[in-house]
Amino acid sequence: MKKVRVTFYPTGEAVEAERGKTLLEIAKEAGIFIASICGGDGICGRCRVIIKGGEVEAAPTTLLTREEVQRGYTLACQTKVLGDVEVLIPPESRAEGAQILIDEDAQRFRALYAASEEEALFRHDPLVKKLYLELPPPSLQDNLADQERLYREIRRYIPALPMQTGLKVLQSLPKLLRASGWKVTVTLGRRGGTVELIQVEPGDRAGQNFGLAVDVGTSTVVAHLVDLSTSRTIDAEACYNSQMPFGEEVTRRIIYAEREGLKPLNEAIVGDINNLISALISRNKAELSDVTALCCAGNTTMLHFLLGLDPTRIRKSPYIPAATAPPPVRAAEVGIKINPRGLLYTMPSIGSWVGGDTTAGILATGLYQTRRLTMFIDIGTNGEIVLGNRDWLLTCSTSAGPAFEGSGVKCGMKASRGAIERVEISPDGYLRYKTIGDAKPKGLCGSGLIDAVAGLFAAGYIDRSGQLLPDSSPRVRERDGQLEFVLVPAGRTETGKEIVLTQRDIENLLRAKAAIFAGAKILLKSMGLDFQDIEQLLIAGGFGNYLDREKAIMIGLIPDIPLERVRFVGNTSIIGAKMALLSEEAYARAYEISKSVTYYDLITYPYYYDEFISAKFLPHTDLSLFPTVTKRLGLEARV
Amino acid sequence: MKKVRVTFYPTGEAVEAERGKTLLEIAKEAGIFIASICGGDGICGRCRVIIKGGEVEAAPTTLLTREEVQRGYTLACQTKVLGDVEVLIPPESRAEGAQILIDEDAQRFRALYAASEEEALFRHDPLVKKLYLELPPPSLQDNLADQERLYREIRRYIPALPMQTGLKVLQSLPKLLRASGWKVTVTLGRRGGTVELIQVEPGDRAGQNFGLAVDVGTSTVVAHLVDLSTSRTIDAEACYNSQMPFGEEVTRRIIYAEREGLKPLNEAIVGDINNLISALISRNKAELSDVTALCCAGNTTMLHFLLGLDPTRIRKSPYIPAATAPPPVRAAEVGIKINPRGLLYTMPSIGSWVGGDTTAGILATGLYQTRRLTMFIDIGTNGEIVLGNRDWLLTCSTSAGPAFEGSGVKCGMKASRGAIERVEISPDGYLRYKTIGDAKPKGLCGSGLIDAVAGLFAAGYIDRSGQLLPDSSPRVRERDGQLEFVLVPAGRTETGKEIVLTQRDIENLLRAKAAIFAGAKILLKSMGLDFQDIEQLLIAGGFGNYLDREKAIMIGLIPDIPLERVRFVGNTSIIGAKMALLSEEAYARAYEISKSVTYYDLITYPYYYDEFISAKFLPHTDLSLFPTVTKRLGLEARV
Repeated sequence: MKKVRVTFYPTGEAVEAERGKTLLEIAKEAGIFIASICGGDGICGRCRVIIKGGEVEAAPTTLLTREEVQRGYTLACQTKVLGDVEVLIPPESRAEGAQILIDEDAQRFRALYAASEEEALFRHDPLVKKLYLELPPPSLQDNLADQERLYREIRRYIPALPMQTGLKVLQSLPKLLRASGWKVTVTLGRRGGTVELIQVEPGDRAGQNFGLAVDVGTSTVVAHLVDLSTSRTIDAEACYNSQMPFGEEVTRRIIYAEREGLKPLNEAIVGDINNLISALISRNKAELSDVTALCCAGNTTMLHFLLGLDPTRIRKSPYIPAATAPPPVRAAEVGIKINPRGLLYTMPSIGSWVGGDTTAGILATGLYQTRRLTMFIDIGTNGEIVLGNRDWLLTCSTSAGPAFEGSGVKCGMKASRGAIERVEISPDGYLRYKTIGDAKPKGLCGSGLIDAVAGLFAAGYIDRSGQLLPDSSPRVRERDGQLEFVLVPAGRTETGKEIVLTQRDIENLLRAKAAIFAGAKILLKSMGLDFQDIEQLLIAGGFGNYLDREKAIMIGLIPDIPLERVRFVGNTSIIGAKMALLSEEAYARAYEISKSVTYYDLITYPYYYDEFISAKFLPHTDLSLFPTVTKRLGLEARV
Repeated sequence: MKKVRVTFYPTGEAVEAERGKTLLEIAKEAGIFIASICGGDGICGRCRVIIKGGEVEAAPTTLLTREEVQRGYTLACQTKVLGDVEVLIPPESRAEGAQILIDEDAQRFRALYAASEEEALFRHDPLVKKLYLELPPPSLQDNLADQERLYREIRRYIPALPMQTGLKVLQSLPKLLRASGWKVTVTLGRRGGTVELIQVEPGDRAGQNFGLAVDVGTSTVVAHLVDLSTSRTIDAEACYNSQMPFGEEVTRRIIYAEREGLKPLNEAIVGDINNLISALISRNKAELSDVTALCCAGNTTMLHFLLGLDPTRIRKSPYIPAATAPPPVRAAEVGIKINPRGLLYTMPSIGSWVGGDTTAGILATGLYQTRRLTMFIDIGTNGEIVLGNRDWLLTCSTSAGPAFEGSGVKCGMKASRGAIERVEISPDGYLRYKTIGDAKPKGLCGSGLIDAVAGLFAAGYIDRSGQLLPDSSPRVRERDGQLEFVLVPAGRTETGKEIVLTQRDIENLLRAKAAIFAGAKILLKSMGLDFQDIEQLLIAGGFGNYLDREKAIMIGLIPDIPLERVRFVGNTSIIGAKMALLSEEAYARAYEISKSVTYYDLITYPYYYDEFISAKFLPHTDLSLFPTVTKRLGLEARV
């Protein structure tokens, strides 16, 4: 095979590649990020690059304008390299912040969903679907009324459920059917036991049907725009939850709502989702009226805020939500701006503190049907833990705080461009790091924080209680009355300010990891099981793509089990929400899951606090729980 | 048994009666009208009379105030006569206009519904029901969410169907449940395959649930206020349909809607229903918010106008309505003022010209389950005819015009106080009549018109084509270029104007009866049957309570069959609507009926016009169809 040389700008990184491969394949192999959601099918149009020189062969595409093609634009996935080539990756296709994670979640979903389609797990059957129908015009022999004629045709596709039509739609029917020559597209939404005829449009618009899967996180809100007719993810967008000023943790926000009412919190999250939708719509030149559904996953309280349901009793004994499985409502009724008759679905919650995001996670990972004893940990502002297999499932929630999402940490940031996502401290004290997008460092995201604390611990700069040891390293210093560790000096950062890890940051992380570990331990204990019984440990979360399993074990965030049993599964909240959005079967399954999982309320568990305190040590007070860490770091000797 | 003497004022009519009987029983036996809906159960409070003197024994009642009792008021049905008594029937309890018919329809319903309850035909299970629930308060052991806790309790009563709750109701739930001490009344409405939780009220309000059955007639609108918790008819009210100025017949109004839009027609009928509701509510001191449902029957076009559906294609080939079975909608969406979340149901139609009123009629008469070959004729502005039995049913509609409802006739009037409802002309030309309420005559209602024409025909004042014969009677005269017959001279009428029957009036009646008879004949013919095969002939209509079957046969309105086979069944439209309102089973049965009846479109039947022309003669061109009339009046000899 003949080799060619491909140089990627603006970095100027040059790689050798096989002639005939696509630019996207070559970039991927070289670890150079080019945005892509569809995985190389030439559909998402995200992998736009500019050919600066050299011989390529590009398949025709409608995703670029004539003008753009003239300016050298091409889709990396549709462009084969025939000789040496120079390529510019324009800013919009570069690794930009949270975009990387989102794109990877989109691809992760694609892999999962495709796999499940092969196995016929969930039929592609969106909660809101469009059907193009050609009706036989009425005659004296076939004189069925307009509504009944339409129903007859719909019944060929959806035979079983009762139909319901809104009065406005019914009123518009006679004129519309005739003006369209009896060729119409109906939009059908699933509402409880009924199929609602939401909309009738003239002509064939079956291909113009979009939906949104939304992960309503306590700290971060992520939205994926999905083509409901093909199940493709078109684009994705994320933002911080604007409720942050009302409190970083769920409990604080509930207290705020108790005092000031839930309106500001409701408006904040509705505004966030509307902003995400509006960005996705304008960027992809879609019509808002073609967005007919959204499916939201989130913890129970976030879903309450979203729907305007009073969450104040969630935090007071006996901890009762207004609803765990709210009905689908018209999105407009909540203030979400999509098609005015479009529907808003929420993933059903399991209990007051284990929400629809966990249900989505169980759905997305197939936890409900695995034979192997599995532990699932969704690391976010809350850490939800699920234990079990296809026969039984047990769940609890722990309050981790926002440290893993880069909040509550002095130099913390979201997992976006410039965030340090990996840290290595070699035995001789030399520190290396890697940032997202290989940009100049701006701060520390969740995975970087885990790495950093693990590194400090391994290097002996902090003791088992997490205390920085003043004389252990020249990087340890005191500022404003507390110790801190300098990760990156000011001259090397994007902002010109140094990036440090404070004693308080470390304590925040230890509290977070201790909360999760204690929860995991109690779940196991309640079933008379041990960490070594776990056959599969799934780590979910939007806190960073990269998770060094070894370091997560080292700090005692996850149990000391063989690495091959640990798998990072990404943002399962949005993956599960998307599955439900795209399949009524999946949505129905989510409901069954939410009803069948046993909810274990740690607040009522008397020994939780003891377990939490024990888990605040590195890796744990009880070293016998972490034999490999103990051995590797020689902890028995370190007192 | 000791006899006593009871004198009723203001007429002074005195009757002998058995001691111990109630005043209502005594009045009924004597043919003296006292208003009553409940049939003597002491519930409706309508039969208020004033004891002027004599010994009575009255059961205590809450329906009269202390002050009223002191003034001598008592309920006629709860008052036993112990000696000679003088009683004043106050104006509100006297026979007032349409009230008589309404009261009788209410009693007719009561008889039918009671009968069917005994036979367990339709379970009492209103379309919208209230349930009083006492929920177990949540605890750590029973920590179900509020909505799910409520559903669990509702499921004890309604196990099968999926539930749906509006967002507003769900939002109000947490506060309301706690404020009420977990004792609430839920309002549940049936919508397609779903049960909607319409409303939650604190405390026990299960007894405060009212509905309306409405007959949306082309000429007359009748509403019954029903206690949904007990199935009692509380009160009734009627008015002319305000769409009259847009055309007396359905077709004229459709043409108006084509030209000017359907809004004025929609507003007219909605306004009528609102006026009826408001009168019923204020008279019975009920709360509008406790009216949770209404069920409307009417012809297909009237239901279109009510729901704001375009009816213009109903009158143009191939005659297609917008919908035959419109879904239940929120009454407020149509502009009907009841509880803002209350539901409006319509009886499903059979075809373009056979509406929900006929479906209601089939339901009310049990026609769908009779073994006997039955013909059902609903005489109104349209004459709908149904033929069949439990194995098959065939229906058609004929355009009779409003003559039977007192419209389109010079001295015609609604069947209300002062309307001549019976006319007898003796062979010597002596004319006797009876008015509703025995008041001074004001005009002629439908049944009086039939009697009068039959009388003129029998006396030989009109010939077989309905022409008045100038010299046959001194009462026949010419005015304004046409012949007319003087029924009541000016001095004896309420208005001081004479009551006459014009040549045009007679022709209108003949057209109306010919239309109906022709339709009946064609239905029979299409099945290879004859009039003599009819085992049961049911005549429905709100056109008058009294129908002289013999005279209806004499003019050829109904076929010449033995009188004992003919039965007047009242306003079956409202009776059927009420059955559906009070029983989901009945509503479901109505839907099945509407789907199973074969609709026969006379407009497409080539010989209809010939049949119509033949039927315009008295009693018919073909005398062999009317053997007893022919024999009795010696028609063979009369040329």
